[in-house]
Formats: sequence, C-alpha cells, structure tokens
Amino acid sequence: MYSGGFIGKVLRVDLTQRTTTAEDLPGEWARDYIGGAGLGIKYLYDEVAAGVDPLGSDNKLIFMNGPFTGTDTPCASRLAVVSKSPLTGAVAMALTGGFFPAELKFAGWDAIIIEGKADAPVYLWIKDDKVQIRDASNLWGLNTPDAQWTLKDDLHDQNVRIACIGPAGERLNKIACIINERRAAGRKGVGAVMGSKNLKAIAVRGTNPVPIADQAKFKAALKFFRDAMKASPQLYPHFSKTGTPAVAEVTTAMGICSAKNYSGTGMFPLGDLGMESQDAHNVGRNPCYKCPVGCSQMKLARGQYEGILAEGPEFESLYAVGTACGNSNLDAVIAADRLCDDIGLDVMSAGATIGFAMELYEKGILTKEMCDGIELTWGNHEALLEVLRRMGHRRPGIGELLADGMKVAAEKIGNGAEHYETTIKGMELPAYDVRGAKAHGLSYATSYTGADHNRGYAFQEIFGIPVPYEVDRFAYEGKGKLARWNQDVRTATCDNAPMCAFVLDMAVPDVALQNTAQLMEATTGMPYNEDDVYAAGERTLNVAKAFNMREGFTRADDKLPRRLMEEGIPDGASKGEMIPQDKLDLMLDEYYTARGWDENGVPTAAKLESLGLGDIAKDLGIA
Amino acid sequence: MYSGGFIGKVLRVDLTQRTTTAEDLPGEWARDYIGGAGLGIKYLYDEVAAGVDPLGSDNKLIFMNGPFTGTDTPCASRLAVVSKSPLTGAVAMALTGGFFPAELKFAGWDAIIIEGKADAPVYLWIKDDKVQIRDASNLWGLNTPDAQWTLKDDLHDQNVRIACIGPAGERLNKIACIINERRAAGRKGVGAVMGSKNLKAIAVRGTNPVPIADQAKFKAALKFFRDAMKASPQLYPHFSKTGTPAVAEVTTAMGICSAKNYSGTGMFPLGDLGMESQDAHNVGRNPCYKCPVGCSQMKLARGQYEGILAEGPEFESLYAVGTACGNSNLDAVIAADRLCDDIGLDVMSAGATIGFAMELYEKGILTKEMCDGIELTWGNHEALLEVLRRMGHRRPGIGELLADGMKVAAEKIGNGAEHYETTIKGMELPAYDVRGAKAHGLSYATSYTGADHNRGYAFQEIFGIPVPYEVDRFAYEGKGKLARWNQDVRTATCDNAPMCAFVLDMAVPDVALQNTAQLMEATTGMPYNEDDVYAAGERTLNVAKAFNMREGFTRADDKLPRRLMEEGIPDGASKGEMIPQDKLDLMLDEYYTARGWDENGVPTAAKLESLGLGDIAKDLGIA
Repeated sequence: MYSGGFIGKVLRVDLTQRTTTAEDLPGEWARDYIGGAGLGIKYLYDEVAAGVDPLGSDNKLIFMNGPFTGTDTPCASRLAVVSKSPLTGAVAMALTGGFFPAELKFAGWDAIIIEGKADAPVYLWIKDDKVQIRDASNLWGLNTPDAQWTLKDDLHDQNVRIACIGPAGERLNKIACIINERRAAGRKGVGAVMGSKNLKAIAVRGTNPVPIADQAKFKAALKFFRDAMKASPQLYPHFSKTGTPAVAEVTTAMGICSAKNYSGTGMFPLGDLGMESQDAHNVGRNPCYKCPVGCSQMKLARGQYEGILAEGPEFESLYAVGTACGNSNLDAVIAADRLCDDIGLDVMSAGATIGFAMELYEKGILTKEMCDGIELTWGNHEALLEVLRRMGHRRPGIGELLADGMKVAAEKIGNGAEHYETTIKGMELPAYDVRGAKAHGLSYATSYTGADHNRGYAFQEIFGIPVPYEVDRFAYEGKGKLARWNQDVRTATCDNAPMCAFVLDMAVPDVALQNTAQLMEATTGMPYNEDDVYAAGERTLNVAKAFNMREGFTRADDKLPRRLMEEGIPDGASKGEMIPQDKLDLMLDEYYTARGWDENGVPTAAKLESLGLGDIAKDLGIA
Repeated sequence: MYSGGFIGKVLRVDLTQRTTTAEDLPGEWARDYIGGAGLGIKYLYDEVAAGVDPLGSDNKLIFMNGPFTGTDTPCASRLAVVSKSPLTGAVAMALTGGFFPAELKFAGWDAIIIEGKADAPVYLWIKDDKVQIRDASNLWGLNTPDAQWTLKDDLHDQNVRIACIGPAGERLNKIACIINERRAAGRKGVGAVMGSKNLKAIAVRGTNPVPIADQAKFKAALKFFRDAMKASPQLYPHFSKTGTPAVAEVTTAMGICSAKNYSGTGMFPLGDLGMESQDAHNVGRNPCYKCPVGCSQMKLARGQYEGILAEGPEFESLYAVGTACGNSNLDAVIAADRLCDDIGLDVMSAGATIGFAMELYEKGILTKEMCDGIELTWGNHEALLEVLRRMGHRRPGIGELLADGMKVAAEKIGNGAEHYETTIKGMELPAYDVRGAKAHGLSYATSYTGADHNRGYAFQEIFGIPVPYEVDRFAYEGKGKLARWNQDVRTATCDNAPMCAFVLDMAVPDVALQNTAQLMEATTGMPYNEDDVYAAGERTLNVAKAFNMREGFTRADDKLPRRLMEEGIPDGASKGEMIPQDKLDLMLDEYYTARGWDENGVPTAAKLESLGLGDIAKDLGIA
C-alpha cells in the first residue's frame, strides 16, 4: 500500500537519560495518518502502555507537525500536542498555531517525542540538527511572556521560537496549557504533562528549506487552495474581519451561548461582549505564519483594566471568563484571558471551573471562608481574576481547590457539588450549549478527548455550513451519521494535516479532502487521493478509540453532563431543549452503527481490519 | 583645533512635517564634546530657545550615541537622551544601556533629533539608512513589553531593538521614562517629552559594521581597558556578582540609606531587602551589549507577588519603592519595579513621590478620601502598587494628583505639603542621604539635572574610591573642589563617552581619562589626549549651566530640600547630620571658585572663552 517517497524526521528526547535521538518517521505511517493528530495518536497508542500515570515518567508528550507545516501552504503552521491526558485519562490532543510549528520544520523536524522525566528543570534547545537539554533553573517560575523573552536573550537569538509552560504547568495543574508566542495548545492538561517532565520550554531555531517533492504539483495545489479561499462567501468578507467573537452574536440569537455554568442561557443581551464593543477594543491582528486571513485579533482593555493586551478573547474565552462566570465586562474578559495565557492556564477549563465555583457559592456549597474570604458571586470579575491567579500558582485554599479543574474540585468539595458539574470525560464544556444543537452534542459526547468543540462540531446546525448538510438542529434522527461524518471527514482532516479548521473546514469544506490530497502528493511525492484522506481520518478516530478503550472507557463514558440531559434551556430561542438519556442513546446507536462499531461502541474486527488496524483488533481481543 | 577624520551621522526627524533628514555631525563638535551628554547638550543649547514649553512642539528630544557605541568596547552600548525637562525646566539628560544604542549605531546613526509633534500617534522605523514615520495607533495604550513584542511582530523582524514609552509617557506624566528592552532612560520626564510628540516608539535595525579609524590603536586600547578592568579590586570580585543592591548594605551601615521620604534613616535592619534575600530572588543576569560584567540581575518575586520578574531592583529602586515607602517586602519591591517599567514610570521619582504621599497621609494632609479610599500607610505595598498603577494611567483622583511627581503634587495639595517636599530643582531625591556625605550633597545641589545621583557622586565619601581621594564624609572643607572634579572628570567622562559609570568610573577610575582618550583616537582618528577628555567634561557642564541660566536658574536654585538643611538624620551612624544653609553656602562658594565661576554661580567670560565657549558668554551677556 505504501508507495514511498517521504522521509520524515522524529526527534526523540529521553529526559531521564538526557539523550536525544533522530529517527526516521515510517513512510507507511505518514501515508496512513498524514500527520498531526493522526500520527501523534498512532505513536501514543504504540508507545504509552495502558494505565500509566499521565503525570508520571512513563507518559510521553508528542509534538507532531504535518507534511505541509512550514511550507508556503496558507494556514498550515499547525502542530498537534498529543499525550495521555491528566485531566481525562483519555487521549489528549491539542493543536496550536503561530510560528513555532513552522520553525520546528525549518529545523528539519516533523515531530518531537518527549520521554521520561528530568531530575531538575530543563529546556530543550533545538538549532537545526543540533539538540541540547539545558538547565532551566533560571526560567522556572516565570510566566510565559517573560520565559520567552528571557530565553531569547539567553540564547542570544531573537529569532528563536519557543513553546513553554507557565507556573500552572510547573505545578502540574491538570488544566495547564502550553504557550508558544501568544498562542496555546490549550486543553486537556498538556501543560501539566510538560511540567511533570520538568520541561519548562522548547526553543527552536531552524534554517533549512522545507523540501517539496513535486514543485509543479505544489504550485498547482496552492493555487487551487487559494482560489477556493478567495471564493469562500465566509472567509474574507466576514471571518477575516471579525474573527471568532462574532460567533457569540449568532449563538446568542439561537439561544445556545451558554452562561453561568449552563444554568442560564442568553443570560444577558451581549452588550459589552458584543461585536460593537469587541471592535472598539481591537488594536490589531496577530496572524499565524503564512496566514492571509489573520482572524486572531489583539484586544486592549480599558477602564479598570486599562493597558492590558490580550490575543483574543476568542469566542470560547469570551464564554469561559465571560458568560460562564456571569461576567459581561469585556475589559475584565480581556484581562482574564491574558492572565490565563501568562500563567499557563487553559482559559476555557479555568473559566468554566470558576463559573462552576460561582454556582456552588450561590448555592452555599462553597462558603466565603472556603474561598479565602473572596466573594465568588456571578460577575464579580475582580474575584475571577484573583482566583485565576491563585489557581495558576496553586495557592493553598481556593487556588489549590480549583487548580485541577471542575471534576477534581467537585470531588474535593463533595456535599452535592457534583450535581452541578458540567464536564464530559472530566473536561469542562465549551461555550456552545448543545442542548440546542443535537449533533454538536453528540460530537461532544463521543469525542475521544472529552468535551471538545473542535472534534466534530456540527456547524451545519449552527451556521448552516457546509451547505449540503443543512439540518434541523433540534432533531435527533440522522445526527449519528452526521456526527460521524463531521468527525472523520471534516475535523480529522484538519487535525491530521494539521491545518487551520477555520479555513480548511469552515471556508472551503467542499474541497477540503481534494485540497489535502493534492498537497499530500505535492509535498510527500506519495500518490494520494480523497479516499486516502478520508481513511486517515477514520483510522485516527479508531486508534484514539482503541487507546481510550484500553484505558477502560466504555459506552457509559459517551455521555453528557447531568444538567444537559435533565434540565431544559431556561429561555431564549432554544427554550426547554435538553438531550435526555433516551435521545442520546438513540443518537449513539445510530452513530456506532454508522461507524461500524457494535452497540457497546466497540469497533468491530471487520471495521478495524478494513482500516489496516488488524493488530489493534488483536490487542483488544476483538474477534 | 579640530584635526578632522571623523564624520558622524545625525538623523533629524520633523514629526510636524513628517520629514526625515540625514546630517553630518560637525567634527569639531565631536572633538569638543566626544558624544552622549556633551553632544546632546550642545545641540540642545543651540536648538532649543529659552522659555519653550517642555511638552510643546518646540522642545526637542535628542538621542545621542558616542563614538564607541556599538564597537567591541566593553560597556559602551550607552546612549544619552537629552531634552528640556518637563519635570525641572532644566536640562534633561538620562542615559540608557542594553542593545538599542548599539543597534542604532549598526544602522549608521550617531544621533536622532526629534522635532515638532505628530498629529496622531506614530513610531519611527529605522532600517539602516531607510527611515519611516509610521502610524502607531495600534501601539498606543500598550505597556512597554507588549509594545516591543507587538512591534517586532508587526515589522516581521525579531531582531529589531525598540525604545518606547508606556501609558505614563502617553499621558505626559512628568515622571515618565523611556524603556528600551528591559532598561530605562529613567529620570527627568524624557518619556513625557516623547509622549508630547505623539511618538510611541523608535524601532531600529542595523546591519552595517561600525567603522574604526585605526584598528591597531583600537586593539591596543581595548587591551588596555580590559586589563584595567581585570585588575580592578572591585569589578569582578564583587560588583559583577552583587550588582548595585549591595550598596544598600554599605549605606545602611553608614546611616545614609534614606527611608520614609527622608524622615527616617536606617529605619529598619535591611532584613528582607538585604543581600541574602536579594541573592535568593536572583534568577539570572541581563547584561548590556558587549558587557563582560553583567551587573544587572533579574529577580523573581515570590509569595503574594509570585511569578513577577523584574530587571532589578537596583539600589535606587530598592530605595524608591522600598525604604522610601517604608516597604521592606522585597517581593513587593520587585513587583513595583516591574510595574513601573511596564507602565513607563521612572521608578525613582514615582516611588519617592508615593513615600512623600505616605508622609502626608500620616500627617493628615492627605486624607483617605483624597486617596480614593486607599490607606496610604507606610509599608502598605498593596496600596503602593495600586497607586503606581493609577499614577501611570493618570486616573482621576490620587493617580492624577501624584502623576507628575512630588513637586506638582505638593503644589496641588497645598495645606503645608511643601514642607515635606524632598526635591531639588523639582526632581525627587535619590537614595543616598547626603546629610552624611557632604560632597555628594553638593553634587546634588549643583547638578544641572536636579537631584541626580549620577552627576558627580562622591564615591570617595561612601566607598573610599577612587582611593587617592579618600576624604572625611562629614567635613565641608574641600568639598567644593571635590564635587567639581567629580563632575567634570569622572561623571562627565562617563556621560560623554557615554560608557557605563560602574566600569569606567568605579572600577578603573585612575585610567578613565587615558582609556577614553585612547578609544577616541582609535575610533575617530582624531588626535586626543587626557586633557581633551577633561576639557570636554568641563565644557559640557558649562554649556548645561548656560542652558539652565537662560531658563532663569540662579544660585538660589543650587540648594537642598528644606528637610536636609534643617532636620538632622534621626539615628544611626550619621545621627544628627544635616547640611545647614551656611554650610551649603561655604561649599558652594568653594565650588564656584573651583569652577572659575563668580559668587553667583555664573561662569566668567574668561572661563567660557578658555573652553572655546566665547559665543555663549556673548549670548548670556557676560562681559
């Protein structure tokens, strides 16, 4: 099946032994998984045995580029960080953009696999093929901008690109992220894994050209892609100008912009969080490498938080440190967003956790004393910022209590707190209230990473795109098939390339497979077609499923939080909507069938074999 | 007299007309003033007429390198920022180091003269000889690290070096500074002048070699300098390891580490501010370009201010946001130091102003209501940080009240506030309590910039160096001559080169003139000797004096704050010491005589003519 022609380079780093090794990436794997999430999960499945402690030295932290990373392909400076998640115990897969992914490719590397654990803080210094594990004692404790600034100075090279953790990652907070430049590989606690290995930062400087197997084909593929981007009715006319925050307007109108830990929806007219205010706070763009779209906006806080600059808020952070906490003060949202990036906390999980704590405070389950005297009332943004700070540094008291996210906090607090928990597989919910978008909800319930808005979102229900799949968002029928298709074809393609989903999936969905196949042929020299892209996506989802099964996950884990299954949306355009267990089961049955999995959500041997995953069937004892 | 051989390049920028012009630096001027402070003040005297509004478009802002800047000379990446000070109305001259000065030289420029005022926020982009005035609306409002980060990204060049103002400079705070990298051209409000011109930043990228007129001489001069540095009993064995904070130990033991707005001295054993604690907070060094010493240390706050990183505190900031405010919490000092750098406030003036306000609060002159409900009690570091923030952003209330420093605040507050004011020529006092170091006090009183610890400090009184000038610090006799010598020979040499005073003056004082002369010959090709260096220093001081006279300054302005003349140091090794008016007069008389000035402190025509400044004598109507 493998037709040869592509040799990727993997840098394997053993922090225990303090050794670094260069390996070839098996060409068959590149063909079968493309790159990014797919390849990362393949390595994870093969190399991280069942039951390892996610924060122990046996876990691995995999940084995986794709075949287009660092090339002139628009929106392809993306990298997947893959590990076993300390937050969920399942696959962790978080994507980041910016310049670090491209720089890693310029240094000649498609991937880094971090193993073991250093006995003291270190950083990794990659200058092309020269790799060193270096003392990071002077960086330990620094926030993420200062760590990057200091390391550039220390290396006497301002062109270095750096991925690092903040104080939250150092303290193994299960909701810690990894920051490169002003961007995050945000969710699932990958920052804690990095911290558990005593790895403060990875600094990269690359000076090599990125090889392209067939320049003529590549040129044609780029033209095809760019033409499709230009023809998109969404991309440049709208998205490029507004970025993701405009989604808040759409979801609020639909009554699915969740608020107050999902106890309210459409809680307030967006007001200060709406686009008019957003635009007034906008001070520029922060595009990723080779991105002509530049959706990422820099916002500057005013008033009480005057002078605080953030990359964002994106729609999701607007929710997490905004509506989720009953906070409609955009300046405070900007300040909280920046604080999370500085301190290395995933803003989504951290904000949602504080929203949860605010509800517990309202119910009297969390007392003022338990909050160190802080009044954790809805919308108290000063309290929000102070608690974020304490969480990031894991300060004794409320900081320690909330530092590992909502699920751990609920367990520690007890006294009925779990009744208000809104997580899936231990990860906090994103902003879209899926009670009013059923396929989207099914993708949350079945995602291999937990409550994840980027693994199979049903944009058909929310934005009416991709157009051929316009659907009734309140209906249950057909949603199993739709969710599977969204996962395998749409998001898996973006995750495996990896390429920016806002462009590849949202703007040019009709040609995403074709575009990816063309780029694969051009960059790797391997024959590749749309079916191969599709198969790589489905294969990835099945390997991820196998990893999670091996960790003990079953159909019972493919669920939604109690609140979403038992409480209707209180008001607005989706009033009364919920996803009861029987409806979820109906969707799950259809979904598993569509996947070729059995009624327990277990892949059949036939399905696995058809994907070339017969070995996995044997591993799992599937006859 | 001028022997030719050196052609410097001056970039003249008219922000009103939005034009930029390259000019030759007159060789005679380079010979007469060397560079830095001397040349800057020469331009200032010639080009800024008497009586202009320091924050008006007629003032100029001069960035002046020296002939060694950007060469391999150790510790010579220094630059003088010269203007008419909005704080004092006298000459403003503030030095900075780091990398910006060298980068400016790499771009081919010895100086930038900023004129006029842009009608909207702009930044200057200097790429070698290509210069552009660009829109800075997206940078306006940003703190100094974010402004530098953003501008590097916007220019797609991480190697750019940037000098910029923060929110304080934008708001024309008379104690605003200019920040490049993590360093400040701190005092005298040069940041406000930059803000008044709507100039947010100067970004520089240079790719040219720095010309050296005589390489063999240069090599020899460098060897001479480095050998002297190595032989210094202070430099590498001590200073390189401790940096300036160790001065707090020395001055505390001598009873001249001032505290609580000079109402206390040796207020507390240094405790948490002492070297043991300093060392424990040290996380690295931050050397300037081509500096083998690296005295600048990075300190990381812990406890309540965990994770805040600062360049420093230096001895003076340890005072200003430490002892001056009765604050012995080193973590808070680090946090306040960083905040000032971020926001673009001169930490010395800002801290001293808050110390003054704390005394007024204690006396009931400032009420809690006037402080916006903030309890401005001695040592209340949370209040200190909050008030700094409000000052930087000039928030209505206490922020606005203190935003322009102590003198303006005293005038606004009235009600006897001026009784507690500790400024000279309107600038806040540094840390050294000169009541116990008389020549040092005389240098404060006579400095052309106001209360300035860097213009003629009498280290002989404090450290017993330079050794041949060991003196009784409590005596008054001989201090006039000593202060003049210190100003003309020692600090003027460092200021004009400009080179780091810690090295040139403190470590190798005996060869400072010789070293500077050798470097002048080597780099410029002009014959130069020690007498020329000395004359350049004296000439500079006389031109500065002439500028100030033209602005109306007289002998009556060469004074000390009331407190230092009327109140004795309350305790410690300098207990009871003060500098009464009659003793100050005694020293002033000797000083003026030593200078060849008359009893009113007016340079004689003979003195001016002997320095080649006959034109100035005519200007000032000196017969």
